[in-house]
Amino acid sequence: MLDFTDKLKPQYDGAATLQAERNASTINVDELAKHLLSRDGFLERQERILRVLEKEKIFKKDHQMNLSRPERYHLGLARAKAVQRIMRKYSWTTSEDYKMFEYLVDEVSPYHLHLTMFATTVREQGSEAQKKYWMPKILNYDIIGCYAQSELGHGSNVRGLETVAKWDPQRKEFEIHSPYLTASKWWNGSLGRTATHAIVVAQLLLPKKGKENEYESHGPQPFIVQIRDQKTHQPFEGIVVGDIGPKYGYASMDNGYMLFDHYRVPKSAMLSRYVEVSEETCTLNRHGHPAVVYGSLTFVRGQIIMHARLILARAVTVAVRYCSIRRQFRDRDSRSDQDDEMKVLDYPTVQIRILPLLATAFALHYTGEMMYSMYIKSREAIENDDFGPLAELHSASSGLKSLCTMLTADGIETCRRAMGGHGFGGGSGLIGMNADYLSKPTVEGDNWMITQQVAAYLIKKMTSAVADPTAPPKDPTDELFQFYLKNRGHHIPQNVAHGTETDDCAIVCVFKWRTADLSYRAYQARVIDKKPWTKLMIQLHSLSRAYSEQILVTTFHNSFRTSTSTLSSPTPEVLRTCFRLYALHTLETSASSFILTNSVSSESIYALQDAILALMTELRPHAVKLVDAWSIPDFLLASALGRSDGKVYEELYDMAHRRNPLNRITFNPDWRSEEIVLGSGDGGRHVLSKL
Amino acid sequence: MLDFTDKLKPQYDGAATLQAERNASTINVDELAKHLLSRDGFLERQERILRVLEKEKIFKKDHQMNLSRPERYHLGLARAKAVQRIMRKYSWTTSEDYKMFEYLVDEVSPYHLHLTMFATTVREQGSEAQKKYWMPKILNYDIIGCYAQSELGHGSNVRGLETVAKWDPQRKEFEIHSPYLTASKWWNGSLGRTATHAIVVAQLLLPKKGKENEYESHGPQPFIVQIRDQKTHQPFEGIVVGDIGPKYGYASMDNGYMLFDHYRVPKSAMLSRYVEVSEETCTLNRHGHPAVVYGSLTFVRGQIIMHARLILARAVTVAVRYCSIRRQFRDRDSRSDQDDEMKVLDYPTVQIRILPLLATAFALHYTGEMMYSMYIKSREAIENDDFGPLAELHSASSGLKSLCTMLTADGIETCRRAMGGHGFGGGSGLIGMNADYLSKPTVEGDNWMITQQVAAYLIKKMTSAVADPTAPPKDPTDELFQFYLKNRGHHIPQNVAHGTETDDCAIVCVFKWRTADLSYRAYQARVIDKKPWTKLMIQLHSLSRAYSEQILVTTFHNSFRTSTSTLSSPTPEVLRTCFRLYALHTLETSASSFILTNSVSSESIYALQDAILALMTELRPHAVKLVDAWSIPDFLLASALGRSDGKVYEELYDMAHRRNPLNRITFNPDWRSEEIVLGSGDGGRHVLSKL
Repeated sequence: MLDFTDKLKPQYDGAATLQAERNASTINVDELAKHLLSRDGFLERQERILRVLEKEKIFKKDHQMNLSRPERYHLGLARAKAVQRIMRKYSWTTSEDYKMFEYLVDEVSPYHLHLTMFATTVREQGSEAQKKYWMPKILNYDIIGCYAQSELGHGSNVRGLETVAKWDPQRKEFEIHSPYLTASKWWNGSLGRTATHAIVVAQLLLPKKGKENEYESHGPQPFIVQIRDQKTHQPFEGIVVGDIGPKYGYASMDNGYMLFDHYRVPKSAMLSRYVEVSEETCTLNRHGHPAVVYGSLTFVRGQIIMHARLILARAVTVAVRYCSIRRQFRDRDSRSDQDDEMKVLDYPTVQIRILPLLATAFALHYTGEMMYSMYIKSREAIENDDFGPLAELHSASSGLKSLCTMLTADGIETCRRAMGGHGFGGGSGLIGMNADYLSKPTVEGDNWMITQQVAAYLIKKMTSAVADPTAPPKDPTDELFQFYLKNRGHHIPQNVAHGTETDDCAIVCVFKWRTADLSYRAYQARVIDKKPWTKLMIQLHSLSRAYSEQILVTTFHNSFRTSTSTLSSPTPEVLRTCFRLYALHTLETSASSFILTNSVSSESIYALQDAILALMTELRPHAVKLVDAWSIPDFLLASALGRSDGKVYEELYDMAHRRNPLNRITFNPDWRSEEIVLGSGDGGRHVLSKL
Repeated sequence: MLDFTDKLKPQYDGAATLQAERNASTINVDELAKHLLSRDGFLERQERILRVLEKEKIFKKDHQMNLSRPERYHLGLARAKAVQRIMRKYSWTTSEDYKMFEYLVDEVSPYHLHLTMFATTVREQGSEAQKKYWMPKILNYDIIGCYAQSELGHGSNVRGLETVAKWDPQRKEFEIHSPYLTASKWWNGSLGRTATHAIVVAQLLLPKKGKENEYESHGPQPFIVQIRDQKTHQPFEGIVVGDIGPKYGYASMDNGYMLFDHYRVPKSAMLSRYVEVSEETCTLNRHGHPAVVYGSLTFVRGQIIMHARLILARAVTVAVRYCSIRRQFRDRDSRSDQDDEMKVLDYPTVQIRILPLLATAFALHYTGEMMYSMYIKSREAIENDDFGPLAELHSASSGLKSLCTMLTADGIETCRRAMGGHGFGGGSGLIGMNADYLSKPTVEGDNWMITQQVAAYLIKKMTSAVADPTAPPKDPTDELFQFYLKNRGHHIPQNVAHGTETDDCAIVCVFKWRTADLSYRAYQARVIDKKPWTKLMIQLHSLSRAYSEQILVTTFHNSFRTSTSTLSSPTPEVLRTCFRLYALHTLETSASSFILTNSVSSESIYALQDAILALMTELRPHAVKLVDAWSIPDFLLASALGRSDGKVYEELYDMAHRRNPLNRITFNPDWRSEEIVLGSGDGGRHVLSKL
């Protein structure tokens, strides 16, 4: 419908503004994009799959925000199935292709757990016979699987799971049972409405030796269980299963619950690559080293970092583009009424929120890449029965998972607030992403809990270093701790900034020194002073954070010696500015920790604010091109504010005026009448029926 | 439907646990509740209105999370109308009653702006004749009004609004017009589908003196405009109006957009208590002092603080209760397999996130009360034509709005994460509250922007203090600055903590000293060194935060001399622990700022961690009773995790298993079929039709 608003234009032209921003920086965006996103053919794959998705109506995101949660599951399932058909049609069958679909569709698919935890667990923990039986059905999606580990009462503490699987020596089978309400499986993705099969993790109960009526637990073990009838899709007798209901995010996913009433499964249900119940002795035979499983946990956490950088880059893309276009107020010191209002990205109060996050996305990138190589290397070591690197890898991956998901989750909200009023609107494109991402700080190892593991590792390393300060160092942590022990008597806090000049090597050193000093304090408190672990927890959490920040800073700095040096000017210099900004901003955020560990001179702390301002001024002209390099397609952004063409206001208006279903209904606002939709005469019954 | 899960119980009994927590503290909850919530009969009102709401089906919250956004507006309107009918039925007509409805229903009503900004603006800015004409219609809800100020292109910068109202000297009327797309009114609550009338804020254009074809703006002025036909509820010709679509929160509210095409309104449309266009000279006559308007802005901001404390108390209520019941892991130093798992609230890593926020809710309370008295006092002064107190009031209210809404918005998310996995679920009861509250840091004055006003005020005060350091102080800020100037040459950083002992007066002093020192630095940078305002913005934001934190700390401390001393033991001592915890935690969070301003000794900084641990240990046994005192009814909490009876797991399970509509549908998970609901044969058409 045409009306007088069709010919109106915004006061300032967003498209021209963004073009001017791009013209003002000589960064080669394509080159930088390839540098960041070439692994596994990411960029080529993105383009290929995007072309298909954009054509299919079912992936349109326009009305998604107007759907109810049950409708979102309907849609999620329809999309999951459509993706399978499309992948087969184009013969795209790699898991990288699949992940790209999920990334671009931007919602967790009800099939998500099938190819991740379900398939992985069977592959890694199934015996050869089990794999032979199950893997073809899995790869063909003849069955849909999920992974049922967490329970209503236990998540982090896997050893405390309440579901039991009791061995019946007579019938040579297991009886799976939920003795308490809190034994209910809970949160397990794809379980609620979708899955036909589940990996059920349960306490394996075997008869006690010599007392055949008493049972004892041999710890949680995985069982593969069919839970629903293949035809009717109804759960079998003895199983209660369903969807747990709406959550912050994951609207499209059927996170489920499940309880068992003495439910019997055959012996073959227990995945038995590493463990098997002996039918003769009713004991558990262990074979092989399941530490390789921790390897895959580490891989998952490495992927979490790579994922975090893309999520953060997306929030920053929206914020940088919108804040380059949005103008508000003339400069307070301006003397002319004719001056344009300032772009809000030119306010330091906006820069200080967005630009350090822009820098952080790059920091995450280089550490994600490093973790990936570390994982490959340790896999090789494991193949040669060398489990040594696992501890360092596990520690780094835990600390980094905690830090990076926190930075990203908080970063999304920081970007949103920096966008003022429109940041709260649907045009931000951040609502769904934020709602989904808020799960990350607590899943796959709670961000506060897993840092205890990091600290325990560092205390152990420091204990060794103290015991033998001249042993040949096995890794960078040994080297650092030995250096620290040698120098702590005569260490001088370092200068990282003089005026607005920064010293990159000194930056790396202060992050390292702080980690070593906090490790030493933790060692002292726990090993020497024998303080209770619980009392130290906050201190240990800070230690993990310091250690992880040190990894980010060191790895980013190392990248200058290797990968980034081949890029054309000015990109390497701009990345160095990102490095400095990330590091100094981090330093300022935790300044007191650097001061108390004598890492940094107080002179530097005074200089920080000006140094950071100067770095942001250096970075500012490149901001739009730096976010362009992350190559987030408009289809994925789904954001009026972040559109690559800068038509922010045109799109916001179009969404509201032409694409909002609520505007097709006329309401009756008179309180005297119970009618809601004008002329419907329904007296509000429609609304009441929904309650 | 009965099944085997009906008889299951949780492994640990939540109800007994919460009872034990309550038994372990001797705080008199009723007494403390009255102390906190007696103003305007809050507690009595809450109970009275709750009794009615609980009986009416339309206010049931059970299925609310399963509704789509358009359905939420339907429901919101139905509830808004129901509230009007109920209020009349019971003859409850005060605005306090109305606010209590909105508080307990816990969603922003589509009528919200009618009684707030719409009515207030007519009352405060309308002439006697205008008030006589409009107020009866408004109070009767014969018309529904809204307040259309913000535009697509301008929010914070009100002077930059693009909508114009041009005086036509011939026809003696105004022509309202939207010259750009960005002139579109935007975000205005109740405008989208509900309102019949709007206050439209537009640039008043009058002919330039001597050049009758040229116009100039006399700044934004409010006009009262009927926008929709009383019968058909359709907008009039020349007006385009609608709902802007889904947002982070406010699903029940129809935030709207509106544009005008040379739309004519009579002269009487301009609210003319303070300004009027002369028909003879076409000039603007001003009469009276509109500063009183700023008074009401301040009142709104004072209410924001009181609201913030209740929102924060609600999040903390949920977190404290759930974390008292949730158990996970045995103590790492435990030597027995028979020990219960620990309550997660006994982990310092959980305490450090929740208990300082519990303390913060009380800090906000006393400052909210203080702001309220300050507002009453300054109203009286204004009646006597003394506008002196306005500047201090406006400054304090701006800084505190920024700080308190940030603390609360961040606090909700901190509580949520502290609850681990279940914190992400719908059972938290925090989803809607969080989505709505996230608007607060950017509305009613963006939290970063308004701090500039605070800093400007403090710089002005410091400039006066430097100019005449012995003038009789007019307010506490003058006193502080004079004290600072006298002592800055020989000031010694203070100890606030020795071991685990704290010094309350020293705490107040260091917060004051930091504020004064940062004010002096800002004065130096701007007034002496003449630095550009823009370059100082980050520093000025930190100054505002320091100043506002100082108000919270000082006011909390002052409460011990007055209100809290009458409470029975141990409440006054526990509140003192809250004061110390809030203050020391704040101090630790910004430790470097206290160090750099020489406010606090480094000895104290080293002692902080242990002091905070000790305070949390003191507070811990009272946590449940302290949140009980905030008297948030279960109806409002709508939280399985936060239920007052502790039946956390029973309720989570009930929500999932018995009240989740998705579980009534059986799906077809086979990718080969386009059918979504099993047996429907619909081939996915239903889903596609929604896109």
